[in-house]
Order: sequence, then C-alpha cells, then structure tokens
Amino acid sequence: MSGISDVARLAGVSKSTASRALSGSGYVSEKTRAKVQKVAASLGYVPSTNAASLVTGRTRNVGVVIPYLHRWFFAEVLEGVQSALLERGLDLTLYDASPGTEARRRIFEDFLARKRFDGLIAVGLEPEDHELEQLLRIGRPVVSVVGSGPATTVIGIDDDDAARRATQHLIALGHRQIAFVGGGSSRWASVDRRRLTGYRSAMAEAGLTELASHIPSEVTLPGGYAAAVDLLGASPTRPTAIVAVCDEVAIGAIIAARRLGIRVPSDLSVVGIDDHEYAEMFALTTLRQIPREQGRAAVALLEAQLDDPASGPTQVASTARLIVRASTGPVDDRHSVMQSDPRPGIDHVM
Amino acid sequence: MSGISDVARLAGVSKSTASRALSGSGYVSEKTRAKVQKVAASLGYVPSTNAASLVTGRTRNVGVVIPYLHRWFFAEVLEGVQSALLERGLDLTLYDASPGTEARRRIFEDFLARKRFDGLIAVGLEPEDHELEQLLRIGRPVVSVVGSGPATTVIGIDDDDAARRATQHLIALGHRQIAFVGGGSSRWASVDRRRLTGYRSAMAEAGLTELASHIPSEVTLPGGYAAAVDLLGASPTRPTAIVAVCDEVAIGAIIAARRLGIRVPSDLSVVGIDDHEYAEMFALTTLRQIPREQGRAAVALLEAQLDDPASGPTQVASTARLIVRASTGPVDDRHSVMQSDPRPGIDHVM
Repeated sequence: MSGISDVARLAGVSKSTASRALSGSGYVSEKTRAKVQKVAASLGYVPSTNAASLVTGRTRNVGVVIPYLHRWFFAEVLEGVQSALLERGLDLTLYDASPGTEARRRIFEDFLARKRFDGLIAVGLEPEDHELEQLLRIGRPVVSVVGSGPATTVIGIDDDDAARRATQHLIALGHRQIAFVGGGSSRWASVDRRRLTGYRSAMAEAGLTELASHIPSEVTLPGGYAAAVDLLGASPTRPTAIVAVCDEVAIGAIIAARRLGIRVPSDLSVVGIDDHEYAEMFALTTLRQIPREQGRAAVALLEAQLDDPASGPTQVASTARLIVRASTGPVDDRHSVMQSDPRPGIDHVM
Repeated sequence: MSGISDVARLAGVSKSTASRALSGSGYVSEKTRAKVQKVAASLGYVPSTNAASLVTGRTRNVGVVIPYLHRWFFAEVLEGVQSALLERGLDLTLYDASPGTEARRRIFEDFLARKRFDGLIAVGLEPEDHELEQLLRIGRPVVSVVGSGPATTVIGIDDDDAARRATQHLIALGHRQIAFVGGGSSRWASVDRRRLTGYRSAMAEAGLTELASHIPSEVTLPGGYAAAVDLLGASPTRPTAIVAVCDEVAIGAIIAARRLGIRVPSDLSVVGIDDHEYAEMFALTTLRQIPREQGRAAVALLEAQLDDPASGPTQVASTARLIVRASTGPVDDRHSVMQSDPRPGIDHVM
C-alpha cells in the first residue's frame, strides 16, 4: 500500500506539503495541490482523516443544526450549505430534530458535546430556548441562518421590512381589510414575529391599526389552508387581502379560496414572503429571498471565522425583492385568476 | 480534566466497560450504560471519538447518499434515518447532490473514498449510473432505500403492484381513458419505470392496451401541473382519469384541472402514490407508503449488517395501502370536489 512518502516523492514535494495538499488545511498553491492530488489518485492513496484530525485539530467537518427538512426554506438552506461544503472538500454532519423533542435535547446535550466538527451552522435557532448558549459553550465557531441573537454571525433577510412592504403593496392597491395569517399557533419563531411586527407597523402608518388582525396558523401549506378556510368561510366581514407569513401559508390560503369559490385576486388578494418553487404556479405575488444563497453564505462566513478566530460576529440582512404576479390586484377589480390562462405568465419585478 | 479512569472508578466498573458504555460499541447492559453516562456527565467527561475510532475501527458515523431534499419522499426518508441514528448515538454525514452533477461525481470519487463512516445508506441510487459499483468497492455495508439492484439490501414498496392497483381502482369505477402521468422527462428513475409497468399491466389485463398512454413529466408538483395543463387543455379526447407516478404529480394535475374549470372527480379522477402530507388537503385517493419508516428500517438493517458482516443482502418490499378519498369517482358521476365541504373529510381505507 502506498503511503504519504510515495505521494510526496512522485509529486516532487516534501511530505508536509503533500500532507497539507491532501488534507486541505494549511496553504498550498492550487498548482501543487492539483499535482499532489493527481499523484495520490494514481497510487490509490487516501489519507487517514482520523489520524489527520488528531494531529491538526481540524476534522474537515461542519455540523448543521436544523429543525425541519420538510419545509421549503430549510431544505433549500441545507442544499446551499451542502453544495458549498462539497466545493471545499468538507463533510456535513446533520443534526435535524424539531424544537421541543427529546431528540433535539439529545443533540444539544450529547452529540454536539463530542465536537466532531470544526464549526457549526445553526438554522432557525431561537435564543429563548437556551440552545444558543449551549452552542457557544462548545467553543467552536457558530454561524446562524435566521433566528438567533447578536452573539453569533447571523444571515437572513430584513423580515420586518419584507412584511411591511408586502402590506404597503396591498394598501397601495386600495385594500384596508388586510389580515396577517400565520405563526403563533404553537411556539413563535422570531422570524415570524418580526414579520407580524412589520405588517403592524405598515397598518399603523396608514392609520389602519384598528383593522389589523393576526390569524394564527401552523407555518405550513396545510396550516395556511386550514386557517384560511376558517377565516374566509365563516366571517361575514372577511378581509379583501391577506399578508401571509410565508409562501407556503399564502399558497394554502389561495387553495382554500378556490375551494370556497372566492376569486383571486378580484375577491381576495394574497401576498407571501419567499418566492417558493410553487409561487409561479399559483401566480403568487411575494417578497423574494434565496435561502440556498443564505446557506452558501453561511459556509463562507464560517470559513472566514475558522481562518481568523479573532473576527467578531457580523449580521447580514439582505433586502427581499417584491415580485408582483397575479394574486394581488386592486380591491374592486373584477378579473379573476381562475379565468386567466393557467400557464405561468411573465412576472414583473419591482 | 477528568479521564476515563475517573469515570470508571466512580461508576464502579472497569475502564474497558466504561469505554464500551460511552462509545456505544460492544455490549454493556442498559443499567450499566446509564450509570456510566451519568457519572461521565457529572464529571463533564466527553470521550475523544477520533481516538476511539482509530482503536476500534468504528467511526460511530453513517453516511447517507441522497439525490434531493426538496421532494417529500426524500426529505421524509432522511428524517427517518436521522431519528433512528440519533436514538443509537450515531452521527449522520450527508452526501446530497443531484444525479449527473459535478458535485455528485465528487461525492463518489473523493468523499466516499475517505470512508469516514461505518456504513452507508443510499437513497434512490440507480444501478446504471455505476454508482452502486463504486459504493460496493469501498468495502463498507450499504443499505439502499428504493432504486438499486440485488447486490445490496434494498427497502421500498412493491411499486409495480401499487400502480397496478391504482389503475384497477379506476377501471373498477368504469374508466377506460386512463393516462399515466410522470417520469421519463429526463432520466428515468427505476421506481417510476416500475410504476409505469404496473399501470400498463393493469390496462392490458382489462383489454385496454390500445388506450394506455404515458405523459412524461418532471416528478414534481409543478411538473405534474405543466403536463396536465397540456394534456387536459389541448386534447379533444382527454382522459377521464389519471394515474400519477406520485402524489406531487397528482396534486399538480388536480391544481391544473381546477384552473381549467375541469371538476374533480366528476370530469376527471386522479389517483397518486405516496400519501403525501398535502394528500388530505386535496382529498387525493392514493396508495400509501411511509418513507419515514423506510428510513428507520434502513438504519436497523445496516446495524444488523455491521453486527454480522457475513449476513447477505435482503430485499424488503412492503405493500402500499389504497386510501380512497374524493379525487376518484365513477366515470359519469356529477358530483364535484369543488362544490363539497373544503374541510378534509373522513377517509376510508381499503
């Protein structure tokens, strides 16, 4: 079996250079790295990473703590993280469990304490759960994607601003009876709470505080559907427009409206936040974020912290873009999405 | 800092017993394990897993190779695998990349060759890609969830049978113009191909071979929507019923039908395979599988192989159950889902 000495000799470099080139830690020119890797491949040499990590203290592994995979945002973030780690030759250890579960508790008490990673990416962490505190005690760099407080680097969108502009878009179309649907049905996610705050501030700025109302729902497509069936089916003074906490809730509301014979947008306007993969199919007006890019940015920021542990936490909040499609219209408009061409139309971006 | 000797002394066991209790490898009674873990926790002792794996040759880590996270089936399988691994104290290293991509190629050529896992779970692997061959060369146990051939243990449902019974359900309701929608738009997944075969055999058994037709589509909700818009909008001889390759395609077809003013089920019956989390919301008749359980079963079978490396591969194919909801009805029925109570009704299971 070939060893690192054989690789070094054939590549014409020192053993330590060959080792750095293959482990990915420490600086080696791209040209040298390529040459060493080619020689290693030709010899069938694979470095023992367990031994390497004992020596260097680097595991070449990043842990990802995430609450769900079955919601679009979280799956997209994870795919972004995965693709960025693969490009860097780093492994991804997944710690996926819903908040409040025994599995979640074990992740924080047992699994993370093993420190089998150089750093952590935490998605949707809520500071009040003391989980952030537990993470920081581990003594490895942490980057958060949405959710947690100023103690770590946090990536996300300006949620307050996104919901405010969604609401202002409806107010500009003449709507006054605007309900905010989603969040607060069981535990609050801080991102959902910030969106509710943004909606309320836009309503207040327009003198509509009295008309503001929050309809709690699970933050899922069926959750939005169930809340909208109750909201739209029962009330004699039903809203003319809905700001949904995210696109999944917005799409659930559109499906409920169609089932109830309520036309979108002539009888009801709906705006979401996300630009979900189904948004175009439902002609949904929304505030666009790109969670896959947030996942990739989290890896880049974690890498920067690993290279310079003295660097302090930063906050990255990008601005969501309003994408106007056919689910929103003037309050008295008589055209219906139900009667239009079902092929997705051309969007215009504002 | 406390060491393993301190833990052993305070727990009243030998060092090797304490080590086994904390590493999770080798047999220790539950009572002893609990006592040792309690003592270790009280001392703040965390075993060095890098050192442990060099000695034992066990990494306490399982690799999961998966093509997508944004499809329901795959996210559910992964959550099942994760929950079963957490219960066993095992880490999950994720290798997620779409077939045909450069990232996918690197996973198979570079990442898996490092062997940073005791065994692998491969989801949706297609034998013709030679990926299975590459996995087997690594020399670690492999369990497949759907997809690959008889060289590894495979878990899944009897896909042929599920699609055959979906088709027979429609034939029993009097349908003859039944189209199969989904799969074959780019690369074929073998699971989708087996479902098409099941549909064709049911059509043939009923003497309807001449009427059988396959409409290719991406195996996603928007893919089913786009295919159904073309199928239902254009054809003067449109089918009275659709067998969809999976629930996401079925739901896309139902959304398309509603947009086109085609009533489900009076004008069009739709049946899927999955029992997706949205199935109830769309009152979708479907063949139920439980991918989360398949993920958990994969971990149990992998564990059995790790304990007894001599055990040969096994094939586990469970039978999907027909769940009849309101998306299927007699070919000439005049009732429409559009007019019914939008609250999910009571299902009956056959």
